Amino acid sequence: MRVVQFRSLRKIILVFSLLLVIFELQAAEPGWGMAIHGGAGTISQENLTPEKERAYREKLTQALTAGYNILKEGGSSMDAVQAAIIIMEDSPLFNAGKGAAFNHHGVNEMDASIMDGKSRNSGAVAGVRLIKNPIKLARLVMDKSPHVMMAGEGAEVFAAQNNVATAAAEYFHTEKRWNALQKVLRHERLEPRMDHKFGTVGAVALDQKGNLAAGTSTGGMTNKRFGRIGDSPLIGAGTYANNITCAVSATGHGEYFIRSVVAYDISALMEYKGMSLHEASNFVINKKLKKFGGSGGVIAIDKHGNVAMPFNTAGMYRGSVRKDGEIVVDIYNK
Amino acid sequence: MRVVQFRSLRKIILVFSLLLVIFELQAAEPGWGMAIHGGAGTISQENLTPEKERAYREKLTQALTAGYNILKEGGSSMDAVQAAIIIMEDSPLFNAGKGAAFNHHGVNEMDASIMDGKSRNSGAVAGVRLIKNPIKLARLVMDKSPHVMMAGEGAEVFAAQNNVATAAAEYFHTEKRWNALQKVLRHERLEPRMDHKFGTVGAVALDQKGNLAAGTSTGGMTNKRFGRIGDSPLIGAGTYANNITCAVSATGHGEYFIRSVVAYDISALMEYKGMSLHEASNFVINKKLKKFGGSGGVIAIDKHGNVAMPFNTAGMYRGSVRKDGEIVVDIYNK
Repeated sequence: MRVVQFRSLRKIILVFSLLLVIFELQAAEPGWGMAIHGGAGTISQENLTPEKERAYREKLTQALTAGYNILKEGGSSMDAVQAAIIIMEDSPLFNAGKGAAFNHHGVNEMDASIMDGKSRNSGAVAGVRLIKNPIKLARLVMDKSPHVMMAGEGAEVFAAQNNVATAAAEYFHTEKRWNALQKVLRHERLEPRMDHKFGTVGAVALDQKGNLAAGTSTGGMTNKRFGRIGDSPLIGAGTYANNITCAVSATGHGEYFIRSVVAYDISALMEYKGMSLHEASNFVINKKLKKFGGSGGVIAIDKHGNVAMPFNTAGMYRGSVRKDGEIVVDIYNK
Repeated sequence: MRVVQFRSLRKIILVFSLLLVIFELQAAEPGWGMAIHGGAGTISQENLTPEKERAYREKLTQALTAGYNILKEGGSSMDAVQAAIIIMEDSPLFNAGKGAAFNHHGVNEMDASIMDGKSRNSGAVAGVRLIKNPIKLARLVMDKSPHVMMAGEGAEVFAAQNNVATAAAEYFHTEKRWNALQKVLRHERLEPRMDHKFGTVGAVALDQKGNLAAGTSTGGMTNKRFGRIGDSPLIGAGTYANNITCAVSATGHGEYFIRSVVAYDISALMEYKGMSLHEASNFVINKKLKKFGGSGGVIAIDKHGNVAMPFNTAGMYRGSVRKDGEIVVDIYNK
């Protein structure tokens, strides 16, 4: 009887130890994956037709699949982020690349940035006009120059020297964005107002090696003037990645995101206050930023592969994919 | 005997209470004051003639006096910061305004930013060419536009609409900066290299109402190309102010300051880790940034009027003034 009891105890200890080992391995192995957004704002089921909604869902799924395939093959989070953003830049649905918002003068002016969480290297461009994929140029600024940020014509000269694909002005023209400008211009005669539909795109990823990356690309505000730069090309405001904490891409009313240093603030709350990704990103978007009057949201992924996508607007085009390949895409605030 | 003892005790309690009240009043009253910098880098006694050193000391003292007089009269920290920076922009000694560095094409391109710690409103301009005082334009972006940041020609159009003083290209030309460009261009033929003398200017202040402000202005890197933007016009990187923590202005190798979000990081360490201004600013400049490979420094003032001016280079033109009017100006790392 006593021997049986001893054997049972040994078995229990063995099983328990095995479970502990499995749990440890599970926790140690990064649950790689990624998240993307296609902008936050006054998106509601009433003003989105079923066809339009389907189109958005399909394009978000396509972007996530492109990034996922790279991560699955052991590719880098930087490449996954870039691939997902290029697909959204190439789609007229989003305010980035093709489909970028028009500035006051009827010109498309685009911003983008990308950051590598391992080296904290980063690249950004602001106010570029004829660059087909601004995120590619931001990556090149990081990889092929000693600088982080380039703007305007200078950035386009750098692009030309590095054989970056350009497109004619007509390529970026979409009726939707053109009409948005005309509408704002009509209203401007009465009183200046903000266009509360944002369509910035972004991606964050954690690869199998445990490296984080974040990127953001935008056409900026409809009717923007005076070479206005928003948060998207600003490291720390619209984009941030650091392997010790998280990767973040923001979308929303850029001025508030700059003044709140939103993307880095989430990382700082994790590093300095020990908050989880969910706690930090929710605190920044739904408490601090909201109280400050700023509307928008972020997508974020931490070094364990946890994903958070808080926003304080009616909707945010967003989606995520885990290492098991499960893709989740959403639009509204449920 | 008992009555005497009781009286003595009452006296002791009275004196003790009075001391407590005085101590409390002392602690509650903000010890207003300000600090400025004129750039950090390879500044050593060997390569600075006594005449040059005297000129720098005089100009720093003049800038501090201008800011001090505003604070003493009950003026705002924003006005004090702007006044001190204008004096340094107007001097050919510093790499800002008159005396700005030349870019690769022999053109002066300037950046500036300013932030109000009370409202966290901020304004910034990047890549402006003919604006006499870029810090004034940054302030106008904050006060007269819904935006935080404007760049290039667009910013100059905004300046013209707001009657901001311009100057001809020759005004910004100094032999010193022109020769610096020629020297770098000669070296560039051999191998590209950084010019490790920075001359960015900045100011931080705490006014009698307890409001903090920070501002930074620069001509950027000698021989910069492709519309490169450094940390000076970036809120969170080169400039940050928040009444609950501190005001910071940075100078140094901008790319590292952007990737480290230096100015906001000091504030975050105070807010989230409970560090003092000295601890936070020293940790960021002499530990984190140094380990990361970034050279430069910051000036910072907290909500109690404590001043910190850490730098990890050979020297930093710097100075501070307290509410008693005592001005301290320094250059080298003693």
